[in-house]
Amino acid sequence: MANHETQLDKELGALKKNLIHMAMVVEQMIDQAITQLINRNEEFTAELVREEQEINRLQIHIDELALTILATLQPVAADLRLILAATKINSDLERIGDLVVNITENVRVLVQQPPLKPLIDIPRMAELVRRMVRESVESFIAGDIDLARRVILTDDKVDALKDQVLRELLTYMTADHSTIERAMALVLISRHLERIGDHANNIAEDVIYAVCGQDVRHPLTQREGHEE
Amino acid sequence: MANHETQLDKELGALKKNLIHMAMVVEQMIDQAITQLINRNEEFTAELVREEQEINRLQIHIDELALTILATLQPVAADLRLILAATKINSDLERIGDLVVNITENVRVLVQQPPLKPLIDIPRMAELVRRMVRESVESFIAGDIDLARRVILTDDKVDALKDQVLRELLTYMTADHSTIERAMALVLISRHLERIGDHANNIAEDVIYAVCGQDVRHPLTQREGHEE
Repeated sequence: MANHETQLDKELGALKKNLIHMAMVVEQMIDQAITQLINRNEEFTAELVREEQEINRLQIHIDELALTILATLQPVAADLRLILAATKINSDLERIGDLVVNITENVRVLVQQPPLKPLIDIPRMAELVRRMVRESVESFIAGDIDLARRVILTDDKVDALKDQVLRELLTYMTADHSTIERAMALVLISRHLERIGDHANNIAEDVIYAVCGQDVRHPLTQREGHEE
Repeated sequence: MANHETQLDKELGALKKNLIHMAMVVEQMIDQAITQLINRNEEFTAELVREEQEINRLQIHIDELALTILATLQPVAADLRLILAATKINSDLERIGDLVVNITENVRVLVQQPPLKPLIDIPRMAELVRRMVRESVESFIAGDIDLARRVILTDDKVDALKDQVLRELLTYMTADHSTIERAMALVLISRHLERIGDHANNIAEDVIYAVCGQDVRHPLTQREGHEE
């Protein structure tokens, strides 16, 4: 029995380590995409392709690891919740990688034309969602519910920035329709960033569910007796 | 042992039944949102709220069911993959519900103004993604790999329509900037529909992975020796 537990701890440690690695790659991808937008260059495509392949490799590896743990070590209770959360976080991180690729497609449109305006809100959004990704995974690793809750609170700021970006760019488009294509590309980038925030938010919710068995995903449908 | 197997079959049946129910509610929500857009009314809000609550209730229930099965019946191999896939499909369906809510927010903007143009591509996109959702879940229930592959192929059509919608609406916006706000709302609806298609696509990929242990999510990083 003691042996079993040690083996389980070791495997759970490997699972966490892979998720941390995956989150780091994803964070770096977000950073690069926004740097590319700000510096107006198109040159890191090869690096992005390599990173995306790394993400895909990690996704498969993490799912296989989770399956192996479930099949061979038959964890229960808290460990079981943790493993299920790990597979969901795995999917979220992989999709964040896809979203960064979508962002770079819009960046490509933008760098071929003169800058529309100094970028303020979009880099701010990118910084917020990058931190959300990091902190959501950190909250999982540390089982830190408070950190997970902070991630969820940050999502409101991201949504507010997204609305602000849309309002401002609609003004640009209306005033001068030579700006329409670029403004649209910026709106779509802000939407991709918002989606990244949503994924980090989902990770944080899954962490709270995994750690304390409490479902914060749907307070309305929640069982009674929980204070929030 | 025979008892154990019967119990497992019964629980897996319950898991599938709940996912079918969830997919039906989600499909209905998509249908209603687009009908609301076409008929230009704002009246089903109460129904949508009820449906979203139903989705949220089902999400919690399905995750609890999966955890209970894993903890008490310790399934292995194919059953284990199936349960992990079920929890991922569960998350995808719940997020599709959220996306429909996003669509109705843009519909609300649109019905308050005169129609911009006859809608052709967006209803077509909606019909495609609705079918993708249904068929992806059906492919899971039946373990039907061919159906799952067809879902994945349909995603390309959805992406092509999304690009077409963007191109057409950019033309409207450029020609007459009184159309900008409405055109933007339509672009965002097409993006939400595309995301729904992505979720159905993810479900189909998870089905193929669950059923034959083959990872189609990333052909590039796939192990050798598999024919596609």
